[in-house]
Amino acid sequence: MMKRIEVFKENSFSDKSLKKLLVHDSEHFKIINFNFMAGQELPVHSHDIDGQLSIAVLEGCGEFLGKDNMRLSANPGDVLISDIRDPHGIKAETDMRVLVTIAPPI
Amino acid sequence: MMKRIEVFKENSFSDKSLKKLLVHDSEHFKIINFNFMAGQELPVHSHDIDGQLSIAVLEGCGEFLGKDNMRLSANPGDVLISDIRDPHGIKAETDMRVLVTIAPPI
Repeated sequence: MMKRIEVFKENSFSDKSLKKLLVHDSEHFKIINFNFMAGQELPVHSHDIDGQLSIAVLEGCGEFLGKDNMRLSANPGDVLISDIRDPHGIKAETDMRVLVTIAPPI
Repeated sequence: MMKRIEVFKENSFSDKSLKKLLVHDSEHFKIINFNFMAGQELPVHSHDIDGQLSIAVLEGCGEFLGKDNMRLSANPGDVLISDIRDPHGIKAETDMRVLVTIAPPI
């Protein structure tokens, strides 16, 4: 099995809300692309299950969000790793594209 | 558990060979950043085990490589998904940074 997804071509931006593209879902991991316009966010949330996720910034700048109002700058090439059960989120300062990988998939 | 890795700052390029940065390794997945100078490659290879990997292009252009000399263009934001047991590789046309995620980790 081999496939290529051209994330920049296949997903767009919306001024109504973040835009989500399911890149891949299998028994091994789930991969989702989120596009944010400046100011949009994925609010801090968590799920009480085992597993971890990564958030890689493909384009644009913003902040990774965590518990207790933690904020870390998020620039192209930055990767956040978090347990799924720990609070995590993203806020975009400019238009921003990120790739989220969740293992095991939820 | 939450951590941020600034891949663009923490890994460099070398004219001797591709440069590898271990971003994360856990029971859930392994994440590695490879930096290629123009012309460098990760030759086609495979491992006879279950699991899948993704290769996301963070910067630069090249080609994803597969079995039977398959080549697919690899541009920023493109994501290749492959079974670990299927032949896969990367060749850089320009200086290129990619993020490889392997689940389960090997």
